[in-house]
Amino acid sequence: MQQQISVITLGVRDLERSRRFYVEGFGWMPVFQNDEIVFYQMNGFVLGTFKLGSLEQDMGRSGLKSPGAFSLAHNVPGREDVETVMRQLVEAGGSLVREADAPPHGGFRGYVADPDDHAWEIAWNPAWAIDENGLVTFGL
Amino acid sequence: MQQQISVITLGVRDLERSRRFYVEGFGWMPVFQNDEIVFYQMNGFVLGTFKLGSLEQDMGRSGLKSPGAFSLAHNVPGREDVETVMRQLVEAGGSLVREADAPPHGGFRGYVADPDDHAWEIAWNPAWAIDENGLVTFGL
Repeated sequence: MQQQISVITLGVRDLERSRRFYVEGFGWMPVFQNDEIVFYQMNGFVLGTFKLGSLEQDMGRSGLKSPGAFSLAHNVPGREDVETVMRQLVEAGGSLVREADAPPHGGFRGYVADPDDHAWEIAWNPAWAIDENGLVTFGL
Repeated sequence: MQQQISVITLGVRDLERSRRFYVEGFGWMPVFQNDEIVFYQMNGFVLGTFKLGSLEQDMGRSGLKSPGAFSLAHNVPGREDVETVMRQLVEAGGSLVREADAPPHGGFRGYVADPDDHAWEIAWNPAWAIDENGLVTFGL
């Protein structure tokens, strides 16, 4: 089977507040939006921010919790970019989870939560290649 | 800033149980593993399954909850593939969340949770292109 993920969908309580974080904080542009969902075309897949009640309804499951046991990472080209991006995200409605520092496995990273408490790791990891289309390749 | 996500990291309680779900259920091969994390090279980014305690430590935050307010989707080429894949995932240790049916927005989809209760939507969505490298493009 294709080693492929098509969509990451985040449940959000306020679609506009979330949109501001992604558009102003990351500088990303939606590819589609209506009053229930905003989609962003990413590097080989799609990110969706979906009204939490609608996500629960689609899933046939209620009681989804935050903060969930996961994180998303956005890698940046340089060590100095980590704190710049984290600052922009906080200014756009995010909250600081962990100040940037150097983890034992190398590189440099910190964490910011989006307005719905979904964690974003902002990382500089020189071992992982990122091409001009944003495609990321694992490396050691 | 690049419209790019580098890593999706899922917190897992039992690395081997989780590995079985992804390797036997989806048929995916790890690109790296040790006793704390398993990485899978995906379509333009990396999926990591990380010991929950280690994720919390890296994040500097404890009390991450499940099921979290998010889902991941794996789109399949045909309508008939949806239930086949869901069955494989359940046989590999997943649990059924929603039987496959046709949502109002079209296509066909169901949900299965991985052994750590992270939700996977298995979907047939003919409007979204998937190329031979698994790169997925939004469409209407």
